[in-house]
Amino acid sequence: MQNRLSNAAQFLAMEASYEDADVVVFGAPFDGTTSYRPGTRFAAQQMRCESDGIETYSPLLDLDLEDYSICDAGDVALSNGNTPKILSEIEEVAAGIINDHKKPLMIGGEHLVTLPVIEALVKKHPNIHILHFDAHTDLRETYNNEKLSHATVIRRCWDILGDGRIYQFGIRSGMKQEFDFALKDHHTYMEPFTVHSVKDIVAQLSGKKVYITIDLDILDPSIFPGTGTPEPGGITYRELETVFKAIKAADIELVGADMVELSPHYDTANVSTIVACKVLRELALLVASK
Amino acid sequence: MQNRLSNAAQFLAMEASYEDADVVVFGAPFDGTTSYRPGTRFAAQQMRCESDGIETYSPLLDLDLEDYSICDAGDVALSNGNTPKILSEIEEVAAGIINDHKKPLMIGGEHLVTLPVIEALVKKHPNIHILHFDAHTDLRETYNNEKLSHATVIRRCWDILGDGRIYQFGIRSGMKQEFDFALKDHHTYMEPFTVHSVKDIVAQLSGKKVYITIDLDILDPSIFPGTGTPEPGGITYRELETVFKAIKAADIELVGADMVELSPHYDTANVSTIVACKVLRELALLVASK
Amino acid sequence: MQNRLSNAAQFLAMEASYEDADVVVFGAPFDGTTSYRPGTRFAAQQMRCESDGIETYSPLLDLDLEDYSICDAGDVALSNGNTPKILSEIEEVAAGIINDHKKPLMIGGEHLVTLPVIEALVKKHPNIHILHFDAHTDLRETYNNEKLSHATVIRRCWDILGDGRIYQFGIRSGMKQEFDFALKDHHTYMEPFTVHSVKDIVAQLSGKKVYITIDLDILDPSIFPGTGTPEPGGITYRELETVFKAIKAADIELVGADMVELSPHYDTANVSTIVACKVLRELALLVASK
Amino acid sequence: MQNRLSNAAQFLAMEASYEDADVVVFGAPFDGTTSYRPGTRFAAQQMRCESDGIETYSPLLDLDLEDYSICDAGDVALSNGNTPKILSEIEEVAAGIINDHKKPLMIGGEHLVTLPVIEALVKKHPNIHILHFDAHTDLRETYNNEKLSHATVIRRCWDILGDGRIYQFGIRSGMKQEFDFALKDHHTYMEPFTVHSVKDIVAQLSGKKVYITIDLDILDPSIFPGTGTPEPGGITYRELETVFKAIKAADIELVGADMVELSPHYDTANVSTIVACKVLRELALLVASK
Amino acid sequence: MQNRLSNAAQFLAMEASYEDADVVVFGAPFDGTTSYRPGTRFAAQQMRCESDGIETYSPLLDLDLEDYSICDAGDVALSNGNTPKILSEIEEVAAGIINDHKKPLMIGGEHLVTLPVIEALVKKHPNIHILHFDAHTDLRETYNNEKLSHATVIRRCWDILGDGRIYQFGIRSGMKQEFDFALKDHHTYMEPFTVHSVKDIVAQLSGKKVYITIDLDILDPSIFPGTGTPEPGGITYRELETVFKAIKAADIELVGADMVELSPHYDTANVSTIVACKVLRELALLVASK
Amino acid sequence: MQNRLSNAAQFLAMEASYEDADVVVFGAPFDGTTSYRPGTRFAAQQMRCESDGIETYSPLLDLDLEDYSICDAGDVALSNGNTPKILSEIEEVAAGIINDHKKPLMIGGEHLVTLPVIEALVKKHPNIHILHFDAHTDLRETYNNEKLSHATVIRRCWDILGDGRIYQFGIRSGMKQEFDFALKDHHTYMEPFTVHSVKDIVAQLSGKKVYITIDLDILDPSIFPGTGTPEPGGITYRELETVFKAIKAADIELVGADMVELSPHYDTANVSTIVACKVLRELALLVASK
Repeated sequence: MQNRLSNAAQFLAMEASYEDADVVVFGAPFDGTTSYRPGTRFAAQQMRCESDGIETYSPLLDLDLEDYSICDAGDVALSNGNTPKILSEIEEVAAGIINDHKKPLMIGGEHLVTLPVIEALVKKHPNIHILHFDAHTDLRETYNNEKLSHATVIRRCWDILGDGRIYQFGIRSGMKQEFDFALKDHHTYMEPFTVHSVKDIVAQLSGKKVYITIDLDILDPSIFPGTGTPEPGGITYRELETVFKAIKAADIELVGADMVELSPHYDTANVSTIVACKVLRELALLVASK
Repeated sequence: MQNRLSNAAQFLAMEASYEDADVVVFGAPFDGTTSYRPGTRFAAQQMRCESDGIETYSPLLDLDLEDYSICDAGDVALSNGNTPKILSEIEEVAAGIINDHKKPLMIGGEHLVTLPVIEALVKKHPNIHILHFDAHTDLRETYNNEKLSHATVIRRCWDILGDGRIYQFGIRSGMKQEFDFALKDHHTYMEPFTVHSVKDIVAQLSGKKVYITIDLDILDPSIFPGTGTPEPGGITYRELETVFKAIKAADIELVGADMVELSPHYDTANVSTIVACKVLRELALLVASK
Repeated sequence: MQNRLSNAAQFLAMEASYEDADVVVFGAPFDGTTSYRPGTRFAAQQMRCESDGIETYSPLLDLDLEDYSICDAGDVALSNGNTPKILSEIEEVAAGIINDHKKPLMIGGEHLVTLPVIEALVKKHPNIHILHFDAHTDLRETYNNEKLSHATVIRRCWDILGDGRIYQFGIRSGMKQEFDFALKDHHTYMEPFTVHSVKDIVAQLSGKKVYITIDLDILDPSIFPGTGTPEPGGITYRELETVFKAIKAADIELVGADMVELSPHYDTANVSTIVACKVLRELALLVASK
Repeated sequence: MQNRLSNAAQFLAMEASYEDADVVVFGAPFDGTTSYRPGTRFAAQQMRCESDGIETYSPLLDLDLEDYSICDAGDVALSNGNTPKILSEIEEVAAGIINDHKKPLMIGGEHLVTLPVIEALVKKHPNIHILHFDAHTDLRETYNNEKLSHATVIRRCWDILGDGRIYQFGIRSGMKQEFDFALKDHHTYMEPFTVHSVKDIVAQLSGKKVYITIDLDILDPSIFPGTGTPEPGGITYRELETVFKAIKAADIELVGADMVELSPHYDTANVSTIVACKVLRELALLVASK
Repeated sequence: MQNRLSNAAQFLAMEASYEDADVVVFGAPFDGTTSYRPGTRFAAQQMRCESDGIETYSPLLDLDLEDYSICDAGDVALSNGNTPKILSEIEEVAAGIINDHKKPLMIGGEHLVTLPVIEALVKKHPNIHILHFDAHTDLRETYNNEKLSHATVIRRCWDILGDGRIYQFGIRSGMKQEFDFALKDHHTYMEPFTVHSVKDIVAQLSGKKVYITIDLDILDPSIFPGTGTPEPGGITYRELETVFKAIKAADIELVGADMVELSPHYDTANVSTIVACKVLRELALLVASK
Repeated sequence: MQNRLSNAAQFLAMEASYEDADVVVFGAPFDGTTSYRPGTRFAAQQMRCESDGIETYSPLLDLDLEDYSICDAGDVALSNGNTPKILSEIEEVAAGIINDHKKPLMIGGEHLVTLPVIEALVKKHPNIHILHFDAHTDLRETYNNEKLSHATVIRRCWDILGDGRIYQFGIRSGMKQEFDFALKDHHTYMEPFTVHSVKDIVAQLSGKKVYITIDLDILDPSIFPGTGTPEPGGITYRELETVFKAIKAADIELVGADMVELSPHYDTANVSTIVACKVLRELALLVASK
């Protein structure tokens, strides 16, 4: 093909080959258990289209995407309408990446897609800790009689990992029983509403292997309207930046990460997608550098 | 409660009690197999909110909703994420209405919701014919290896009814094999692109029991953008009016009807919802009067 | 001020001084009796902003705005919330224009603003006929117990003019009694749904003084979504063009005109406003040339 | 009717019967004096549609809607276009609720609807104090020569209550004379821009009967774009949460409340409506529990 | 990379390699001379994202994309802000495709991008004829004193080709002089407003080499709002289908084609992009098969 | 013309004649080098339409537009597509204002329009200092090989003014080299991310002549989505208010100002335009009073 023609459809500066890459970014376009506004299936694709709107250099972290080998490998091809089968397809992809000694960085989809990545990771890293950023508890035992749901995903992770391994921040919505699960019974650590304690928590996790899952609806709906279940009273982008700086400064090993719940068709002013792109850049720099 | 306060949430002039009603309108808020843009789950609710924008009298049909006993019974409560179970829940509701000697008029949801209503109807009326208005063939044997899908629903109806019972109009998208199924092998009758032959077909069906299913994407996307899979080149609203007049003039018995695939969150100018409301008024008048 | 700076806020090529003008365009930003979606108060202002998107030359009429003396005189300053007072303010403006031997061309606002212009005109031209283009009958005796309403405006004009003076086209929504008022009792002439008979009617009106009122919701909502009460099944823009050509060819005297019910905040794709601008250009050319 | 069908159109968990209810929620769909962008008439209806997006439990207040008897009684049926008559209709509804020994919680509509509720309340509770949250002073003696206007409503309340009874917070727009009325002449208490002093004020009001009126445009337009007169520089949702916590902690008796000025058709990303739903939940919990 | 991951960013079924392809599709993301609403630079990228919404089979033409070797080669990398240089970059790409014995099919960008493709084509095919579909004449000698402009592009083509080689259809906006250029002086053939004569014209061109340029604003704004200069009164999609059928039936050789002026950020309901995708499918099938 | 008709198209209360004015506001509708989302050409026009939504009195500054002589002189008429010529046209207008002993206050347009105003100003005031508020560094030597670009504009100003004259605030995006230009090599003063040091800087500038340029994308995209390159993590409107208060309190002479990069067609909820209007009011009050 001619030099002047280019058909790259990868996220900004994530153009390493799969073989050369240390971090593999992939999309998991699944929104099948979404109870309110669906559409997160379109997130990764839209982010690739919009990623030219940001720069490769992060002044916050003083790191640059161009200094790392990151491959945006595209979206997982998923079956249609069979939740358990879809989760196994995502787990297969995550396991492949991990077995190739690379780190997975997933773009959801709804939050349930975190579960198969955790299942793949614990086979290699049984002692991982999870930093969970979200507006919602996601701790229900079942939701509409279903065990596999965006509203139960962290409870399912707890089924695997048990007490003392999950740290929740920014939570501001859920049933009273879910808050009690964390705040009274201490099955997880939870800081409701805010993210002030991240710095202390990552200090406690010094030397540990850590996975980060960010439900972008932790951000206030003013900053991130393009999501299925917007919940007023969220954190600002600057508060999220304090999280990134705390993680950069911490002595932890990041074994992977994900960001979920961008629903671009509700992003009428197109700024949620740009927020998601910037979060992905910062996450990728953290995963690649730690 | 005080006289001046009212909390009606029923479609315009469809306020008969269930017991008194001859026609029962209900919503089936399911969009679980949608492959492109989801959101038809919100259709019935949004139509109720907007129905005040039209009148009860149809100058086209010279009939008035206020002269009939129609009950808008609300939405079916559905399980989450288990397609076969959801279909059985819809069938149960439809069967109840039919057994109470009333006619069902359903608002989708995606097109797959037509299947359980047909299943309920054939138990009472084994010889029904279906008039199918749509942009898409919906005749695939499977879609993504699934037999139950919005893209297979008319094929599933054919499984039940067999040759010579399904009449398709306005079809302008599908695989070549699907067009061959109809146009070469004549398993169904099909008029591609247009609806000119409706008048002749309903004359042929004189004295028969007939069910109408309208996938609103038969309308051109200019008229009906608020749908999951808009397909350019559709019919105009006035062409749809010729269908309504032909049915009114025909000597057929309408045993029920549905209209599907309004996805209101893509209806940015809010006119698709008004189109759907007007179609529901005309359909209700036809079902009630014939 | 410097030559390079310009602060014109007039509609395209309607920059004659009031004194020099033969036709005076003005806005009547009133939407106080709107029952469904308000906002026509913003129509004239938005049209001025968007009018650069069209040309001054009409290939349909083979006439050019630059060949006529037309003044866009701005919006009428209106009181707030007192309907009778507001109508008298509009009548005062219209009467001033008429007394200055100029023709009024008004941009609504809701349809009720037509009434004061008719009241001003009949003082000078007691024998005018009205060509009324609309989706709605507007013939109610009262609406919500009010005699002055967008839904009663043509009935109020009939109170003034009596039988045989009002010709209604494109009507497709109303109460049965309103259709009977026209079609059974012949108080007005009415062609429901379409505009085919305009050519014959204007031939009958040969030599007469005629006023044109266009409720833009006569157009199908696909063409004109930006209006308070969109009604499916309307005419196309090309059908409206046949009206303009018939009027151009007719031997009538146009004493004024109006176009109403653009509600620009519902015009999400910004095409209703362009349609309104083009209609205003054609109307202005007709009023100026006949 | 069948069990599986439901047609509830009430706000989330506000399903007590009117007779059993301690708090009666109702809508007042009036926007007749709105000077800029109209449309608040649609607020209560849209909030009912969207209220499923939030939970019944408030982690902020540690209270749950399911523990209280609240009735969403629907919207007041209003006359069309006659402001004094409409206000008397709202007052009649409010008076009925108060006489039935229930507390009114109103959803506007424009801010003028607060006036008839205050008029009804002072007949039973002549000594009420008003906590007023708003971007705008609303203290004009007249607006466009009208005494009854959204821009004069608090001045009208002051006409009834006099000095020392009205506390205004978050005010950031108005005429200099209005600010002087409060800040120089001390007819009302005013904290411009912010809400820091709410805690102190409610401490001063210990033992008193208090009414809360929240004009939602007190929130920054980034958080609440869906309103008629957005005013930059508003408070954040978290700052509003400090207000709710202060009120919960205070020793006051809440005799009623309202929230006004949601205009859902300007809420393109649909987050203003969710903000309004969450505010209504918190307000309802406060009114019910205090 | 793993089998399950795919990062194709090519238009539906246009996945041949450049070497194997008979038709090469490419984007020309330039909108630098746009006078009204810019944004066509985003068209090709957005169409690739949305092309999954249509099928590969065209029932209109009874042809299937999967039966042809078509390569979507991506967008031309363009300099910024220097119009002549940008045009030479596009010409270089087109010339490369032509010299490789493949046919170019370009997605604009504004209409000016047609010029460099014509310049490249005439070097190989000096006798080409152009079928030009558009709302606008595009025949000005200069626009704002510039010779290179979206409003002059067909005049520039005429500079190259001379009289009797350009056929214009659907034109409904321009200056009187431009219409005279075609209709009085016959420098081009022009059918204003409609496309009825395409069948006759292509019959006259039997045996000739033909290039097709479609400015998508030939379609009515109801069908295609997402464009820079929407012009009411355009053709319907079905009328465009008669063009495609006439071309398929004609005995002409298609040497290339383009479609221009999709501006996706104005496509609020996302249907203009689907229209553009379907037009590209039909155009590609015509270019590949003729 | 009649008294009741008015066609003012000037920004709120900026109705002084050019001759009487001390401050001249004008628009520079140029967006020709915009690399991402264009459309700032529409900013000034849209702001005039929306300015009625705010008041003339600023409670923040305790100043009122009605107390100053400000002329909104309209938009500069610009050539099309020739960047150097366009810049000279803007410079000519700015020089005229300055030579008439008035202060220029410009509404962009993209940021490049600042350059010709600076070029005009330095001829009269060679020692000006620039306060630059922005999300982006704008310090590139070239962008896409172009020296004149929105991404190089502050570097071009530095070419004129040299070290120690430019103060940058709120910067959060750019290449590492650009940050080094400021933070390591100190060619400009830069406070990244925030605006805390404005108070100290203006104290240092006591007695100096100062020009203010505000790229409105310094505000967080939640507050200001309607811009070409939204960048998450920006300042709040209240933080911008601290800037205005610091400038009011400082002992500096304002010789002019501009605000750029409002792109109203991306302002779906219409709040960015209101933010821009309020910023213009505060800027105008500062320029007029200092």
